[in-house]
Amino acid sequence: MSDKMLAALKTKRAAGAELIEVNIPQPKPDEVLVKIKACSICGTDKHIYTWDKWSQSRIKTPMIFGHECCAEVVEVGSHVKNVKMGDYISAETHIPCQYCYQCRTGNMHLCQNLSILGVDINGIFAEYAAIPEICCWKNDSSLPIDVASIQEPLGNATYTVMESRVQAKKIAIIGDGPIAAFACGISRAVGAAKIYNLGMMPFNLDICRRMGADISINVTTEKKYVERIIDETDGGVDVVLDMAGNKNAVTDGFNILRRMGTFTAFGIASEPFEFDMANNVVFKGANVIGISGRKMFETWYQLKNLLDTGKVDVKPAISHRFPFTDFIKAMDLATSTAVPSAKIVLLMSPEI
Amino acid sequence: MSDKMLAALKTKRAAGAELIEVNIPQPKPDEVLVKIKACSICGTDKHIYTWDKWSQSRIKTPMIFGHECCAEVVEVGSHVKNVKMGDYISAETHIPCQYCYQCRTGNMHLCQNLSILGVDINGIFAEYAAIPEICCWKNDSSLPIDVASIQEPLGNATYTVMESRVQAKKIAIIGDGPIAAFACGISRAVGAAKIYNLGMMPFNLDICRRMGADISINVTTEKKYVERIIDETDGGVDVVLDMAGNKNAVTDGFNILRRMGTFTAFGIASEPFEFDMANNVVFKGANVIGISGRKMFETWYQLKNLLDTGKVDVKPAISHRFPFTDFIKAMDLATSTAVPSAKIVLLMSPEI
Amino acid sequence: MSDKMLAALKTKRAAGAELIEVNIPQPKPDEVLVKIKACSICGTDKHIYTWDKWSQSRIKTPMIFGHECCAEVVEVGSHVKNVKMGDYISAETHIPCQYCYQCRTGNMHLCQNLSILGVDINGIFAEYAAIPEICCWKNDSSLPIDVASIQEPLGNATYTVMESRVQAKKIAIIGDGPIAAFACGISRAVGAAKIYNLGMMPFNLDICRRMGADISINVTTEKKYVERIIDETDGGVDVVLDMAGNKNAVTDGFNILRRMGTFTAFGIASEPFEFDMANNVVFKGANVIGISGRKMFETWYQLKNLLDTGKVDVKPAISHRFPFTDFIKAMDLATSTAVPSAKIVLLMSPEI
Amino acid sequence: MSDKMLAALKTKRAAGAELIEVNIPQPKPDEVLVKIKACSICGTDKHIYTWDKWSQSRIKTPMIFGHECCAEVVEVGSHVKNVKMGDYISAETHIPCQYCYQCRTGNMHLCQNLSILGVDINGIFAEYAAIPEICCWKNDSSLPIDVASIQEPLGNATYTVMESRVQAKKIAIIGDGPIAAFACGISRAVGAAKIYNLGMMPFNLDICRRMGADISINVTTEKKYVERIIDETDGGVDVVLDMAGNKNAVTDGFNILRRMGTFTAFGIASEPFEFDMANNVVFKGANVIGISGRKMFETWYQLKNLLDTGKVDVKPAISHRFPFTDFIKAMDLATSTAVPSAKIVLLMSPEI
Repeated sequence: MSDKMLAALKTKRAAGAELIEVNIPQPKPDEVLVKIKACSICGTDKHIYTWDKWSQSRIKTPMIFGHECCAEVVEVGSHVKNVKMGDYISAETHIPCQYCYQCRTGNMHLCQNLSILGVDINGIFAEYAAIPEICCWKNDSSLPIDVASIQEPLGNATYTVMESRVQAKKIAIIGDGPIAAFACGISRAVGAAKIYNLGMMPFNLDICRRMGADISINVTTEKKYVERIIDETDGGVDVVLDMAGNKNAVTDGFNILRRMGTFTAFGIASEPFEFDMANNVVFKGANVIGISGRKMFETWYQLKNLLDTGKVDVKPAISHRFPFTDFIKAMDLATSTAVPSAKIVLLMSPEI
Repeated sequence: MSDKMLAALKTKRAAGAELIEVNIPQPKPDEVLVKIKACSICGTDKHIYTWDKWSQSRIKTPMIFGHECCAEVVEVGSHVKNVKMGDYISAETHIPCQYCYQCRTGNMHLCQNLSILGVDINGIFAEYAAIPEICCWKNDSSLPIDVASIQEPLGNATYTVMESRVQAKKIAIIGDGPIAAFACGISRAVGAAKIYNLGMMPFNLDICRRMGADISINVTTEKKYVERIIDETDGGVDVVLDMAGNKNAVTDGFNILRRMGTFTAFGIASEPFEFDMANNVVFKGANVIGISGRKMFETWYQLKNLLDTGKVDVKPAISHRFPFTDFIKAMDLATSTAVPSAKIVLLMSPEI
Repeated sequence: MSDKMLAALKTKRAAGAELIEVNIPQPKPDEVLVKIKACSICGTDKHIYTWDKWSQSRIKTPMIFGHECCAEVVEVGSHVKNVKMGDYISAETHIPCQYCYQCRTGNMHLCQNLSILGVDINGIFAEYAAIPEICCWKNDSSLPIDVASIQEPLGNATYTVMESRVQAKKIAIIGDGPIAAFACGISRAVGAAKIYNLGMMPFNLDICRRMGADISINVTTEKKYVERIIDETDGGVDVVLDMAGNKNAVTDGFNILRRMGTFTAFGIASEPFEFDMANNVVFKGANVIGISGRKMFETWYQLKNLLDTGKVDVKPAISHRFPFTDFIKAMDLATSTAVPSAKIVLLMSPEI
Repeated sequence: MSDKMLAALKTKRAAGAELIEVNIPQPKPDEVLVKIKACSICGTDKHIYTWDKWSQSRIKTPMIFGHECCAEVVEVGSHVKNVKMGDYISAETHIPCQYCYQCRTGNMHLCQNLSILGVDINGIFAEYAAIPEICCWKNDSSLPIDVASIQEPLGNATYTVMESRVQAKKIAIIGDGPIAAFACGISRAVGAAKIYNLGMMPFNLDICRRMGADISINVTTEKKYVERIIDETDGGVDVVLDMAGNKNAVTDGFNILRRMGTFTAFGIASEPFEFDMANNVVFKGANVIGISGRKMFETWYQLKNLLDTGKVDVKPAISHRFPFTDFIKAMDLATSTAVPSAKIVLLMSPEI
């Protein structure tokens, strides 16, 4: 094998990226080298590509970005114990120190010394990548590579839904992006009785509906949807999953939440906003749950169970597939405000 | 309306019952009088009919037995506040004192002074019955009367499943009677990833399969099923729902349970048996949850959500329907060891 | 007994109140008439007395306000079942409908049709009051009347602490009013390992310290207390109990909270404020719990256990005692910005 | 340093042990070599010493037994990352594989491939021992060595108590050995309102009382204690912690448990016994929690918080201290049926 590979490199502190040849990385003793089979584009990657404010403060160039992938192990570091040559893995992207309070009490995904693949260190938009053994999740050989690649964001949705205890409840999922669509699918699979989905894009609302939403509400065109939901549910939904995060989403979410309800916050606002803690949380006796990442590895096992037994079909949320060589074209689509998309998967040739 | 009604009366301290005319009861100030639309036969009713050891010690004759029903309210007591003439109700059968520690801490279903409809006081195998207001659950007018009647045992299954947190897990349901069949249906609806069902009767195992069991195991004919389940699940199922209760069921249940698993005990053994607390519970770090009755009324709301949205179809578990005038025939079938049956519903004429 | 009684009446839509003679109320069928033995002043009463914006929108005059009390039952309504003449009771002040979803699922304290004693209906700043049976909590005859009177706010603190699972954890209690002081006492009693208390008033911080706070921080004079707490706790406290509610309190609270920590919100801000949901809740994986009222009646039982066994001594938080005839004087002290106070108890003569 | 050390070796498949010179072990790459400062005697060590049935089936000779200790790190393996020369550690004794389902879902202490220090591999009754890095818990330098040594069994008690949610509850602790005594201390520290302690030995019941039991009951001499407890608690205790495990203990425990109560099982019976699952668990709606080991490392952090802040004083439970050279004498005392003892600590000279 050559010592060079194709990679999507963030070379400049500006919008864009370059698909160029770089050296194949050397795995450290506790890492494995993997050959990427498929990778997919996350909202974080769009921020980095468009070089928004957050990226400017967090990202150090030059850097290979990207973190959602599946891959084959082609080399193992000297201290690696459980991952083997030829294993078909997906990558958990939260890299834990394994020694802080969080790591040693079952919450590695919120390690106090966390670093993130493709954000703090080189990522996986490349033909090869070095992955810490602790972050390798072995896939069943029968799992299609597009599904295997998107397990990381599917895991976000799974963790959000599982913490929210949606079974036999009436819920609302706010947002219509890929993770909201996944959340619709997972919620339906684990027994939400009725799913309201609030979004803004007809293309994406339709995907959410195909994933499992019972009632789609386009908040840009429908009027009095807050009153409608409160009325239909006799006081509000039991659970709100907020996958949008902005002020309007959060305000709507608490307005349609019944007393003693659960508001699960996954979406990220770009800045603080005015919030009515007294009426939203205190007087309502509400429970607000912040979700970041996925449980390592409880969420992965839960997701595996749901995928293995066919309880959830994630295909409707994959809107586009490209060969990796079309990376720039794929990123331009992902960040387009004119052309809609959902999850975009990049396949290493000749697998497409 | 006449002051007489047909009722299934336990007249003698012996097997059997009589379908005879008795006085229509007078509701107390906190009761309503209801006209029964449908009623159904529970395992408890079989014990009373066959006059087993438990019945001999608990039941005082003469008594109208039966407790599963749906009905129309035809008279309301003077202190009744929320139930109205014409309401279409089903009866919760645990009658709480509303004042003890259990009742005032959210657990009325395990009231310290509990009495049970059709066991401790006159029940509903009759044309009319007096029901405490606290035990009335209002049905939607669209709910079919056979489904409305069986909500009480469906509630047992729902409570068992909801306490067991089955979503995205591999589970086993032990037993193949109607409540096991309901548990299969509810577990599937709320997202169990894979359901093993262990039973003894092909007729009933088939019903459980139609309700949602993924894998049926006839423990009287299949060999090495314990080893098989442990092997297929890589260490045992996450949750066991025991709807059988006898020594073999409990032993099997703990044998197929993985470490840190949940064993939910609903089935009732007729007497104590040898149990390995150290290996079953302590070394395994298992959690054992005892289930009696249904949460009043959280379980009823959950069940309503599942039925209203069509997430569970209970029809496969209703094996027979009779007019109420065929009560003795229905009881003989229910207690037959030769002819199999599942849930048997009795319909008041002319509704059949 | 005369048909007149002394009562603190809010006669005008303006600051102040009048201590005048009014008719003794008639209990309804499901109420009891009680003779007040002691009553105490809540923050809500101060709002009503000073006629703030909230009071102007909520309170209808004329009205007897006040809701914290203990009393003797002197007359029982015709439907009352469990409360008897001569019972020594304290009043739960949340009056539930007993029939909505919240009431029938164990959360009466957040009834959808809730009314509040001394806010929505006449209260207990009077010689006699009519109390719904459902709101009567029977005290042990040995409980001192000042302690019996303040059980309602003690219950707020108990519910807040119990939901927060403080045992063996490092916690912060923000605020130094009476409920914060009670929370210090309850937290110490149920095993908080270390209690930081943040407040602004030396008089009140001292009371909190006597109730159980390990470390007192006066946020108006101490600098860099956020950094100090993060440093001393290696990343932040496990739990924050916010009994203040304003923007600074909430901001400080989330700043000193470790990842995956619990923020329990009891304090009420007078208006919405800017909040960083992304950094405070989402990225931190925090859990925010809104607390309103007390569990009916789980909290009362828990509190009884703690008081009966002497695990908590609430006396340090009672700063003043007055005869009820000095009601106006007591209210003026309670609302004084010049003279500090904590919990103020009013005793009916001749018991003082 | 010499390459020989003194160790308590189980040389023969028979009762007893020998204190002899053996080679100092070589740490593997992921282990550290520690110099023992203090060690203590567990019930398991007594089984091994007396060579009971369990030991005969589990223990392979020759083997150094013992697992409770504190020690100084004197050599670190080549892959060790976080433990350093000179660290003052105590040993977690459950050695996990770190890769099975249990290990990767926060339950390493119940690893599917668990091995136990001093049971499955050489232990710490010696001057030196090799300990896997994953099992090293760093102590604060101020922690006395006798307390540091007994943290492992203290952790059993802490895990048992914390899972049982005893705060503000009335509880019973069954058993009077060292772990029952620790459980009394921890339960008191984390807010149990009232602690009944049932035991058989006056010497040990007295220690439990000094650790925190409110009411001591000697079941061999007191009559009608079941009735007494049910009566005093108005229906039974909220929680039973069973640290004994035998049939009588379990039977008593369920008899004194109220409906919906929690029975936490830590004690180990030597064989299965007759158990009334229907009345003990099902009809009572009881929750049974099996406890084995300690959470790695949540329990250790909780214990550290309680010890650091002086919330629990474990000294009353340490009944004897010996120099390690008196090991045989100490074991003879520990296994004596004539002379009572509680926790026995062995100190390496010249520290005694």
